[in-house]
Amino acid sequence: MAESMSLEARLKSEIRAVPDFPKPGILFRDITPLLADVETFDACIEDFVARYRSQNVDAIVGVESRGFLFGAPLALRLGCAFVPMRKAGKLPAATFRRSYALEYGEATLEIHRDAFRSGPRVVLLDDLLATGGTALAGAELVEEAGGEVVEIAFVIELEALAGRASLSRWPVHAQVVYTADDASGPQ
Amino acid sequence: MAESMSLEARLKSEIRAVPDFPKPGILFRDITPLLADVETFDACIEDFVARYRSQNVDAIVGVESRGFLFGAPLALRLGCAFVPMRKAGKLPAATFRRSYALEYGEATLEIHRDAFRSGPRVVLLDDLLATGGTALAGAELVEEAGGEVVEIAFVIELEALAGRASLSRWPVHAQVVYTADDASGPQ
Repeated sequence: MAESMSLEARLKSEIRAVPDFPKPGILFRDITPLLADVETFDACIEDFVARYRSQNVDAIVGVESRGFLFGAPLALRLGCAFVPMRKAGKLPAATFRRSYALEYGEATLEIHRDAFRSGPRVVLLDDLLATGGTALAGAELVEEAGGEVVEIAFVIELEALAGRASLSRWPVHAQVVYTADDASGPQ
Repeated sequence: MAESMSLEARLKSEIRAVPDFPKPGILFRDITPLLADVETFDACIEDFVARYRSQNVDAIVGVESRGFLFGAPLALRLGCAFVPMRKAGKLPAATFRRSYALEYGEATLEIHRDAFRSGPRVVLLDDLLATGGTALAGAELVEEAGGEVVEIAFVIELEALAGRASLSRWPVHAQVVYTADDASGPQ
């Protein structure tokens, strides 16, 4: 991979488009080739590290389960806590919980009530911003647990689904943006 | 945390025992304090790195979703591929799949058929070894996809549930072992 390529171009070259998943007409952005290419995966994490290194971040909150893949390495490199935000019934201690509409159904997220003992400044991280329902519920849960959302960060944003509009209360960052022009089919 | 403590003692000091989760009589080993303590989390990953650095590992397979938390940082530090093994219906391309009995129910795991293009030598990683059903299905799936299981690795082993017995075809390693003596109640 040429060093001179932009990060976005590098990431896009390792994100596979899978048509008709999880249902007909949907073009799914598959990150498994990115995870399998360690130089690209490393560059992805390093880009987040550079962005948040000087932000006094106390915790990275990763959204189950693909947010775990990026959030855990980021927390380790920043030297801060990692906090998992999980689907209903997975976290064993006392939680806050929130139900929300997904792109393809409905779901409930939970976070431990004692999640932010290490400090309140939080980056909320997930792999993909679609309609924004998951991230909105996630950011509200962070605040309910006493956290302060420094930024909501994604590897991928599907611009055509306008998820950013529902997150206007917080800074939002995505490394890779797919527009309607990136595919002939709907996203 | 004192440098002179063993890794197992350090990890145990950051693993919380939650009684009666997910059902009465079960003592749940909660890794969220470990994830929140970056020095302990880092020591956990470094211990795996030291163990596998000279093993010519081509890929770390992490089992959804807690295996992602340890597997992704480990793959990045080893400089090898990370491959997610996911629950049914999550992976978008062609997969192999296997159903198995869980400690608390039943589940199906999948892996992409093209998972090991980077090479066949695999460490299969999950957070916890209980009855071994998940790991057995996982190791068989790795082999079905053309992988060679170098070792099956866990952060935690619950010895009383005898999961190791079902994994006798492969080397098995756990950083922390809880025996029946570690709790008055059943595990």
